[in-house]
Amino acid sequence: MPTSPNRSAAHRLLSVLAAFDTGHPALPLSDIARRARLPLTTAHRLVADLAAFGALERDASGAYHIGLRMWELAALAPRGLALRETARPFMEDLYEATHENVQLAVRDHLDVVYIERISGRTAVGVRTKVGARWPLHATGVGLVLLAHSDSALQEHVLAAELARYTEHTMTDPARLRRVLAEVRSVDAVVSDRQVTDDALSVAAPVRGPGGDVVAAVSVVVHVDGARPSALVPPVRLAARGVSRALGWHPDRRGST
Amino acid sequence: MPTSPNRSAAHRLLSVLAAFDTGHPALPLSDIARRARLPLTTAHRLVADLAAFGALERDASGAYHIGLRMWELAALAPRGLALRETARPFMEDLYEATHENVQLAVRDHLDVVYIERISGRTAVGVRTKVGARWPLHATGVGLVLLAHSDSALQEHVLAAELARYTEHTMTDPARLRRVLAEVRSVDAVVSDRQVTDDALSVAAPVRGPGGDVVAAVSVVVHVDGARPSALVPPVRLAARGVSRALGWHPDRRGST
Repeated sequence: MPTSPNRSAAHRLLSVLAAFDTGHPALPLSDIARRARLPLTTAHRLVADLAAFGALERDASGAYHIGLRMWELAALAPRGLALRETARPFMEDLYEATHENVQLAVRDHLDVVYIERISGRTAVGVRTKVGARWPLHATGVGLVLLAHSDSALQEHVLAAELARYTEHTMTDPARLRRVLAEVRSVDAVVSDRQVTDDALSVAAPVRGPGGDVVAAVSVVVHVDGARPSALVPPVRLAARGVSRALGWHPDRRGST
Repeated sequence: MPTSPNRSAAHRLLSVLAAFDTGHPALPLSDIARRARLPLTTAHRLVADLAAFGALERDASGAYHIGLRMWELAALAPRGLALRETARPFMEDLYEATHENVQLAVRDHLDVVYIERISGRTAVGVRTKVGARWPLHATGVGLVLLAHSDSALQEHVLAAELARYTEHTMTDPARLRRVLAEVRSVDAVVSDRQVTDDALSVAAPVRGPGGDVVAAVSVVVHVDGARPSALVPPVRLAARGVSRALGWHPDRRGST
């Protein structure tokens, strides 16, 4: 988002929306203006336009939050709610089979974005959240999506500093490269304690009609007593089920 | 959305987003321009701004659809994903108890908007859809939300022409008024074949911390062999569970 005074009216409006994030779901007008780097009068006018449209709503305290109209529009996103609706029955089957946390994620640029989650009530606590972003190298779904990204993007990720969350997070490019090759070969990955010290995840790719990997499904389990190899078949099965529901056939495995 | 040439830049940008709906989830640029009543050059520039922000994405055919960024923003809507996340475990329990379609909806002006659904695979087909709108008088969740709306809104709905979907749809204002009073008294409603001839729904109110009704939960079942009175307790239980998770206590029942 450019911050120059010459940015277009569209940019200014979108900067108001971009002021909201998971750390700032509700903002008073003054905070919106500050975060969007807009004069208060401009912010006031744009917030009024967005509120009239239903993209923002005002609560009893006077703070603004994202409105229901955005939810309705988001329901039209093929990589959001539409994908979620297709995947959900297969995720529920996977949950029934494992009673562990089940997740669905897509790649957006250099991040994983979680689209859906089923949380086991007795399952391990997870740090991921629907609508939240994580880097590709540190999660099971991210490794699957990175492994099936084009090589330029992979090189970009491998060349950058890789964030560390635990002592198990893979930050060595050579090791990561080997893991990505293995993901492509076995169509699944075990991400061991990379985000928290007590959890591991098993992930597998979801393919679209043309065979491209469009999403990833994972199960997150407590590391104590975990048998990741036993989780690979059900996770792969669920991911293939979603792929078939999206129009994929096994004879179109994709070029990667 | 005003259509005068004087409408603001913000209105023009929002009119591009408003060109997308459930009947038009993917649009080529020329259709966006036509539906937003904008010159092609203006539409082109605004679509480019929205695409750079991630609010729109372009598919292989060149058509645009709602992008992942909108999904991320929508995840911050308290009446959207946040409510859904709170309600989901209770909806799952209700599904386990009934194995029928379970729905969660909120009111937006004169409509019901469905926020979440769990579909029974052997359950009756339903016409409602996540992100879709229905009028208040014709659905179980709508009757609950209308019964707990302010009286001005109720009078507005009762004074207008009430759309009919089946011969059972309630279109008589006097009868509707009696039903609304009963909903307030028994804290649940049975909506009998109002949307389709083969389904009925049982709905109950979800209350926020202050006692106001903020949403409604329903179960939709096939009319043959349905025992709506047996469904009222589990639906009420699930709705109260969601209410408690939202911070409501039984001693704060709300003013309506």
